[in-house]
Amino acid sequence: MNEWKFSVNGYDPACTALDGNRFLCANGYMGLRGTVEEADKGQFPAVTLAGVYDRFEDKWREPVNAPHGLSIRLSLDGQPLDAGRAAPLKHTMEIDYRTGTISRETDFGAALVRSRRFASMAFCHLLADRYEVLFSADGEMALSVGISTDVWDINGPHLFDYSFERGDTLSVSAVTGEKRIPVAVAQRAVTDFEGEVSFVQDEGGVFRVIRRAVRAGERLTVCVFAGVYTGLDGGRPLENARQLCQSAAQIGYEACLYAHRAAWEAIWQRSEVSVSGNEEAARALHASQYHLNSIAPRHADNMSIPARGLSGQTYKGAVFWDTEMFFFPMFVYTQPEVARSLLRYRIDTLPGALEKAAEYGYRGAFYAWESQEGGREGCTNFNVVDVFTHRPVRTYFRDKQIHISGDIAYALYAYWEITGDRFLLEEGGARVILECARFYLSRASCRLDREEIDFADVIGPDEYHERVTNNAYTNGIILNCMENALALEDIFKDRPEWFTRLIKETHFEKDWLLLSEAKNKIRRPRKRNGVTEQFDGYFDLEDCSLDTVRGRLRDPREYWGGDHGVAGCTQVIKQADVIALAALFPDSFTDGEIAANWDYYEPRTEHGSSLSACMYALTACRTGKLDQAWELFMRTASIDILGGGKEWAGEIYIGGTHPASNGGAWMIAALGFAGLSMKNGEISLDPHLPKQLSRLSFPLTARGTRWIVTVTHEGASVRQADERCRAGSAIREE
Amino acid sequence: MNEWKFSVNGYDPACTALDGNRFLCANGYMGLRGTVEEADKGQFPAVTLAGVYDRFEDKWREPVNAPHGLSIRLSLDGQPLDAGRAAPLKHTMEIDYRTGTISRETDFGAALVRSRRFASMAFCHLLADRYEVLFSADGEMALSVGISTDVWDINGPHLFDYSFERGDTLSVSAVTGEKRIPVAVAQRAVTDFEGEVSFVQDEGGVFRVIRRAVRAGERLTVCVFAGVYTGLDGGRPLENARQLCQSAAQIGYEACLYAHRAAWEAIWQRSEVSVSGNEEAARALHASQYHLNSIAPRHADNMSIPARGLSGQTYKGAVFWDTEMFFFPMFVYTQPEVARSLLRYRIDTLPGALEKAAEYGYRGAFYAWESQEGGREGCTNFNVVDVFTHRPVRTYFRDKQIHISGDIAYALYAYWEITGDRFLLEEGGARVILECARFYLSRASCRLDREEIDFADVIGPDEYHERVTNNAYTNGIILNCMENALALEDIFKDRPEWFTRLIKETHFEKDWLLLSEAKNKIRRPRKRNGVTEQFDGYFDLEDCSLDTVRGRLRDPREYWGGDHGVAGCTQVIKQADVIALAALFPDSFTDGEIAANWDYYEPRTEHGSSLSACMYALTACRTGKLDQAWELFMRTASIDILGGGKEWAGEIYIGGTHPASNGGAWMIAALGFAGLSMKNGEISLDPHLPKQLSRLSFPLTARGTRWIVTVTHEGASVRQADERCRAGSAIREE
Repeated sequence: MNEWKFSVNGYDPACTALDGNRFLCANGYMGLRGTVEEADKGQFPAVTLAGVYDRFEDKWREPVNAPHGLSIRLSLDGQPLDAGRAAPLKHTMEIDYRTGTISRETDFGAALVRSRRFASMAFCHLLADRYEVLFSADGEMALSVGISTDVWDINGPHLFDYSFERGDTLSVSAVTGEKRIPVAVAQRAVTDFEGEVSFVQDEGGVFRVIRRAVRAGERLTVCVFAGVYTGLDGGRPLENARQLCQSAAQIGYEACLYAHRAAWEAIWQRSEVSVSGNEEAARALHASQYHLNSIAPRHADNMSIPARGLSGQTYKGAVFWDTEMFFFPMFVYTQPEVARSLLRYRIDTLPGALEKAAEYGYRGAFYAWESQEGGREGCTNFNVVDVFTHRPVRTYFRDKQIHISGDIAYALYAYWEITGDRFLLEEGGARVILECARFYLSRASCRLDREEIDFADVIGPDEYHERVTNNAYTNGIILNCMENALALEDIFKDRPEWFTRLIKETHFEKDWLLLSEAKNKIRRPRKRNGVTEQFDGYFDLEDCSLDTVRGRLRDPREYWGGDHGVAGCTQVIKQADVIALAALFPDSFTDGEIAANWDYYEPRTEHGSSLSACMYALTACRTGKLDQAWELFMRTASIDILGGGKEWAGEIYIGGTHPASNGGAWMIAALGFAGLSMKNGEISLDPHLPKQLSRLSFPLTARGTRWIVTVTHEGASVRQADERCRAGSAIREE
Repeated sequence: MNEWKFSVNGYDPACTALDGNRFLCANGYMGLRGTVEEADKGQFPAVTLAGVYDRFEDKWREPVNAPHGLSIRLSLDGQPLDAGRAAPLKHTMEIDYRTGTISRETDFGAALVRSRRFASMAFCHLLADRYEVLFSADGEMALSVGISTDVWDINGPHLFDYSFERGDTLSVSAVTGEKRIPVAVAQRAVTDFEGEVSFVQDEGGVFRVIRRAVRAGERLTVCVFAGVYTGLDGGRPLENARQLCQSAAQIGYEACLYAHRAAWEAIWQRSEVSVSGNEEAARALHASQYHLNSIAPRHADNMSIPARGLSGQTYKGAVFWDTEMFFFPMFVYTQPEVARSLLRYRIDTLPGALEKAAEYGYRGAFYAWESQEGGREGCTNFNVVDVFTHRPVRTYFRDKQIHISGDIAYALYAYWEITGDRFLLEEGGARVILECARFYLSRASCRLDREEIDFADVIGPDEYHERVTNNAYTNGIILNCMENALALEDIFKDRPEWFTRLIKETHFEKDWLLLSEAKNKIRRPRKRNGVTEQFDGYFDLEDCSLDTVRGRLRDPREYWGGDHGVAGCTQVIKQADVIALAALFPDSFTDGEIAANWDYYEPRTEHGSSLSACMYALTACRTGKLDQAWELFMRTASIDILGGGKEWAGEIYIGGTHPASNGGAWMIAALGFAGLSMKNGEISLDPHLPKQLSRLSFPLTARGTRWIVTVTHEGASVRQADERCRAGSAIREE
């Protein structure tokens, strides 16, 4: 096994969607799904654009897929050589995580096709593919290379008013329906052969068709360069796209690939977790880090990452709490500039959060559950479709999942703690924390005759239980948010006048007084034998096994949650909830309590979310359950290799890559196995290396300094990284 | 048309359940469903016992049906003469509301069967039937007269350990499963003919079989008397039952009937609403008053009435708010001793209500939504079965329908106001009002940063909208409850030391201070163009027509409410809610506001409950919408003649009689058409007589005096009733 590569042999139509995710190449600006060059819409080809949203009619708003600039179709003697239709003798797709490239090799008998493509990490608007055909029979070849507009859309169409351009450079430009944002794709193809050229242009796109006679043994190559720009990038999208693909063609495929690989190499140098002793684990970690690194918004300074990355339109391309809880940790410890971009997105979208709170009659900042551009709430009140009636079902993710604001405040505080960079707090981060705390002050329920404060009618991380009171996780993150707000005074104790002005400008004087009083009154959850009750009344719910609950399903695609779902009225939960709290705030639990909670909740957890296993693994490390931690780690780290995970919620497709698991894999390795944490500016390690590994090592950046952490069964060390490591210029040999 | 009678010709198997309700005879102790004597279980025969509950395994607790003591089966030459199977030439069932008797006439060709039966209003443990056969052919007759144990049960069986007795007196005794309450039925049959007697005793019951040869033209008669007792009646049930049926047989059928009719005559003299100008209306009123009067617990002084009366086990035989809001008004104005019994049931079940509040973490009295014996909550958390998955659905009737406590306090106050009888308040009523108010103080939600008090997460009368905040009706009845509590001080101003002791004994000192403060802070609903918003956010829901909502059903038996129901997320409501508030508290609305609310809500109301039309009719009278009031009145008053109303909620049978409509018919006539109200001890009339009626007249008792109200289009009068009217001794000629 190669620790850096993963391949699939054979073409299985049932795996088209999955392979599209496994062989995704992305660069933060866009994600090119891992379909073959000749794929049609049925195979879900897509070039998903980060941060460009559109709503068609009354369907869900979702990210826009650009026309596909690496579309290639080959035929011989009129017979299409299409992996999806022609039953090839041999077919292999391979991803190289280190270089961020996708290779393909298909033996059609009469011809062998090989290609290698990438979404450039050096020039984020560039896609490139080197496509080579080796003929083993004589015949008449037709090669169509162009820009396909026949791309996948879940709730489309999104592009209108197409215009096409033919010639040496092909182009397609269009505008989105809702906001009329221009989207332009230009393509240049460089061949090492001649032929009769014609053009096809129809509703499927624009293609250059090259026809010629070929002989057995002949090898033809075409290098394809596509530039992708939108109106959100500034400038003139079509011109820019044309320019880029022409320049790239001029520089040549190899030079473009070199720049791309160098960029990836720098990323790996800053973030690679390397392990010894288990190749499968090593590869799974590389896969996880590849997928998460590939979708980081390095081209922007205030952009975040959707829950399914750039693998398509699932979950509306929206930003969830996944970002702060699961993506953020790897970035803040390895590439803080990416972490900063993720948080600046929240700072810049504060107005949307203030508006949402006001919409529900509250003050402060209530961040969107599914945040789209500008912090706009992408979540509707009807987020699940009933599989029996085909009617939308009222769900409460939008209005009751209030922990999101606290999650953001938690990350803002962690960013300051780990980087020591106060600038982000000054630049709006502190205000966000205050507004989140204010939201909770305003959302708190009191009683006339009791001191305690309840947070009633909420949904915690375990979404199967809707509209509960005093969810342990939610109350915990709220307490933390209030503490973070109060801590600001100390963080800025050297700038008291600045802090006083902030309080004044945000009209926070009264709320400041309320804060310290309120935080002590927040209802603490009930405990039974050391087990924290997930919410008021949870222990009174039917206590039955996962299998029992699963056995009650009448349709495999049924949604498990809510009053009609099989889990909603039982103790079966979707994902870590109390355990997520324990993972985030280990100091609030004794080891014994963590073990008790783990033993209680784990068997009752469906792990129906990629946010679950990681939290269980982290707490398993803490209590020495290393076999379980290992199993959960492998499950988490392998998810975008092996597939798995739910593809449907009711009638809604929810497949895609799993950035939260990707980030979770890093978290288990670094925060769990190595036991990394930052306390008062100091790096601390509490290693729990599973027996399956002999060594674990990774770089990190903390308070401006780069370090290398190494853990073996003999001990753990943190040493400062040397300069060579930081240069990031060398490309390892393949 | 006879204003006092209703009959159905022909035997329609599809109407068995309906006719069982229409021809119900009941006397408050038990209800004998209107099936033919020879009915088997498929036709839903039942003798439903008031106040005797049982739970079988984990099914719903429900009232117990006694063995059927008036079971008679006839055959000629071995052919059963069974109306349900033998396709009779002619078949008629008739109810005489005045005398409370059910007559039956079936022409089988070879024999004509006539019977007349009743559940004695004079001796509540007695059922009697006079059954006569006129043969028109010669043959061998077999007549089985006995006690059938093959009775209907929804969630049975409930009776076990049967023992039987044969002889001149037959008997069946058994015990309930859960609490082992003895239930005994004894039967005596008196024939005017001889024959060969044998006995049959098997799991279907015990029967005396009389065989003889009959000739065409021969007429044979049997009078059957059944005594029914349970262990809750004290004494020895079986002995008592034997004794009673033997005494009745000795006295004879006619004498028993005379006593029964006299008792009914007294009831009619005290309560009959008589109208002129429309026979249909007159009959519908008689039907309504018959059904409601027939189920009044006159044999007990602390018993209430289930929502479906004694017509079966629907709604678990439980007592709902229907009692206080819809049954109570007729009784308090006509037979206050019945009203007192209804309220004493609530007083005596206060411990159950205190316990229920504590179960949910509140103080004070939270009365059961579906109250069974001892105030025990009959409502489960899963009150609807999904028609698609056949799984129970979590519903919130049990835990969120908090207005029930205020409804009870409202009735207690009204009892005092109308009767002037303070004794009930002294005997526990005042404490109930205080504990209900205390419950609301404890249930109120406040915010840290706002003065207002919310009542969050409730269900109002419109049950389709679950878990709403600040339901207008609920907040209104809570305000009223707090005012009623505060008013007690004035009511008892001549006994200050008694009142002080009450406050002290109930530890109400602090709550008393909270009360007057809290009541002013209760959130008042938003208004738009004079229309009160049903709850926070109601106006933002989808505003579509009833037909649109109905058109979304995929199964006619689907439950409309909750997040999965077709109405739950629209403005379509089940029943009067804001309008119920306006009907109860007309002084809090201007005429213009009532009209605006009526015009807004009526088209959005499904009237899917028998609690709805009455409230709309009352408010229609107030605003002069007399045509609509008339239509709603006729719909309400006719429901137990014409049938209609839903028979299914999900997969649960909810058919039966409609005491709330029965009471509603009286309310529309008396409180609407005559505009009766009591203010400060004075009778007030505000007549709105519809053009369809020329005259309306009814007796009432207020503050100990009997009055006759008469309304014509010329005017209205209240005069004191003369002695003759009060005697109640004469029986009108049939």
